[in-house]
Amino acid sequence: MFDPLKYRDVDPGFRVLMGPGPSDVSARVLQAMASPCIGHLDPAFLEIMDQTQQLLRHVFQTDNALTIPVSGTGSAGMEACFVNLVEPGDKVLVCVNGVFGTRMCDIVSRIGGELIRVDFPWGRAVDPQIVRQKASAARPRILALVHAETSTGACSPLAELSQVAREVDALFLVDMVTSLGGMPAGVAENKIDAAYSGTQKCLSCPPGLSPISMSPQALDKLKSRKRPVVSWYLDLSMVQSYWGKERKYHHTAPVNMMYGLREALRVIAEEGLEARFARHAVNHRALVAGVEAMGLSMLVPEKERLPMLNAICIPEGISDAGVRSALLKTYRIEIGAGLGELAGKVWRVGLMGASCTRGNVVLFLGALYSILNQMGAQVTPGALEAAGAVFDD
Amino acid sequence: MFDPLKYRDVDPGFRVLMGPGPSDVSARVLQAMASPCIGHLDPAFLEIMDQTQQLLRHVFQTDNALTIPVSGTGSAGMEACFVNLVEPGDKVLVCVNGVFGTRMCDIVSRIGGELIRVDFPWGRAVDPQIVRQKASAARPRILALVHAETSTGACSPLAELSQVAREVDALFLVDMVTSLGGMPAGVAENKIDAAYSGTQKCLSCPPGLSPISMSPQALDKLKSRKRPVVSWYLDLSMVQSYWGKERKYHHTAPVNMMYGLREALRVIAEEGLEARFARHAVNHRALVAGVEAMGLSMLVPEKERLPMLNAICIPEGISDAGVRSALLKTYRIEIGAGLGELAGKVWRVGLMGASCTRGNVVLFLGALYSILNQMGAQVTPGALEAAGAVFDD
Repeated sequence: MFDPLKYRDVDPGFRVLMGPGPSDVSARVLQAMASPCIGHLDPAFLEIMDQTQQLLRHVFQTDNALTIPVSGTGSAGMEACFVNLVEPGDKVLVCVNGVFGTRMCDIVSRIGGELIRVDFPWGRAVDPQIVRQKASAARPRILALVHAETSTGACSPLAELSQVAREVDALFLVDMVTSLGGMPAGVAENKIDAAYSGTQKCLSCPPGLSPISMSPQALDKLKSRKRPVVSWYLDLSMVQSYWGKERKYHHTAPVNMMYGLREALRVIAEEGLEARFARHAVNHRALVAGVEAMGLSMLVPEKERLPMLNAICIPEGISDAGVRSALLKTYRIEIGAGLGELAGKVWRVGLMGASCTRGNVVLFLGALYSILNQMGAQVTPGALEAAGAVFDD
Repeated sequence: MFDPLKYRDVDPGFRVLMGPGPSDVSARVLQAMASPCIGHLDPAFLEIMDQTQQLLRHVFQTDNALTIPVSGTGSAGMEACFVNLVEPGDKVLVCVNGVFGTRMCDIVSRIGGELIRVDFPWGRAVDPQIVRQKASAARPRILALVHAETSTGACSPLAELSQVAREVDALFLVDMVTSLGGMPAGVAENKIDAAYSGTQKCLSCPPGLSPISMSPQALDKLKSRKRPVVSWYLDLSMVQSYWGKERKYHHTAPVNMMYGLREALRVIAEEGLEARFARHAVNHRALVAGVEAMGLSMLVPEKERLPMLNAICIPEGISDAGVRSALLKTYRIEIGAGLGELAGKVWRVGLMGASCTRGNVVLFLGALYSILNQMGAQVTPGALEAAGAVFDD
């Protein structure tokens, strides 16, 4: 029976978040979010918005004026980019090498874009040469792909793919949900026209906002649209009036989430981007060394691997859910299951933001080794030593 | 020059939130939001989701299975209801008596619905008799209106308008952004097919989530759609798979915002709906008594007034912005400016949720009297006495 008076205080317990996001959130960020809520047009809040924009430009590595957090999770950022830049009938080439590429296709179809879908094996990077062939033939207005495929752990080469977009005069639209804050974004350097991300991955802020950045070329497309954007909530022409000098009310901003994002971005700026990227890289290499020392294998070939999302192939005869459940129950570690065609085939281990620590690498390797051993799997000793060798290198 | 290391800790200062939202948020809710973030598929979080749904049904006064918070602010809930229930060509009758009614019209047009717009004076309730005439002639599939027009302070009669919707066999869609938690919603009693709200008004949670509730009849419409919902992010067929038994991943839920909403709803359940509504009613009457004792007048006729949003006509010759600025700077009180055609004509004073206190009524009346006096306005003494008489009644 419904008796709300019996509900207890929120108590999520202790977790080590090593899944595909959310990642661990620092006490600094949580405390910032617990600051008193004020009005979305309050001068004190407008200053927080301005600073959040500056900090976002820093981590996106761009000067783009339209660099803001959209009021929704990462998927809202994806939708915002497509609904604003695609009009019915516009050709959109989407590179698909995992679940989030298929999601792009779904969105393009819903809004009436003409979809040109180019598939790649799941667990591999997008191949610029193949994209060049398809794009030269199709002449799309937008070339879209996922930088860091969260469903597979594959990283696609932005510089080369940006070059292809420029060759065919297409806008270059990139999903940076998982990469932003854990590896270079280079929005300016890679001439990215639209990028979006989520707060709960390498930014280590709770989920709820989706940072986006759009180039002047993308804004031109916005201005020259023939039809209104199908989404009122995500119509960036209106949203940017609130973020710009006019401060025109559009919708009530998620005030306390903004406090949290600003604080998470301050943490990043204090660490420094280069140091942060190096930390993600070394912990990733140590994790992989340990995993391979155990005799397990990674899904993605070495040169195409993301640092922050590691897909480990599940050994034959080992229970996917059993291992994840033991990690959670015995060690309080959350990792991710496989998605889509990789369901049951891989475990996804995140090393994102605050979760990306030497301690978590050691904890995970020790826990996984012990669990697999107990399940009677063939695992070779020496994982911690192999990881240690990377750290000491 | 950009130097993020010089940015200080978040410090919003002290505010008394008496605008059109956000309202004051209790320490309980802020602390709940600052609990550690866990995964959106963690068993502990799934339990929090279930409880949040139960608590939402309580405040919406319904058993509707699809009663959930949408991952965006109130406007996202508005968009979610329309994009899911309206297909291109569907006739939608929208009653407009303020800004938020015009926003409904905008959304209907963007998604290709056939809009039948019925206008009413701003500051007045929607008149069921006029709606009956228009609806009988037009036979819309959806009849939509704003229960509590935040831009004017007018309250429209749900029971009578629901009756009209049933007469013409239309789905009844209601904006409850400002009313939910401060006056009866009666989603079941009033046979409302789709209702949406925001967290930052009478629920006294920070902005960021939009509770919605849909009837079985609305779900039938969802199932019988011929075209996919144009928004992937807000496609409730997919979203409800995550909230239902399947627990199918759609997008990452705003975990910490959910902690906050659950706590805000617990606060409401502990107070009791009837006691809460009575508190809103008496503080409203006291505020009005004080305002009228000063010689000022309310925009909305007595019987059509909302308790939680009070639009006060700005006296001739008095500076709108000057008064609001003095309230903020001298007294730390935020109130709202007029919107749309009421810009410069009214002040909007909220008495919502945690902000709806006897202390705030007294504070506001005292501050306003003092400011107007200093500006040389003709104000009659006796506001506090008039308010006190209501409290002591």
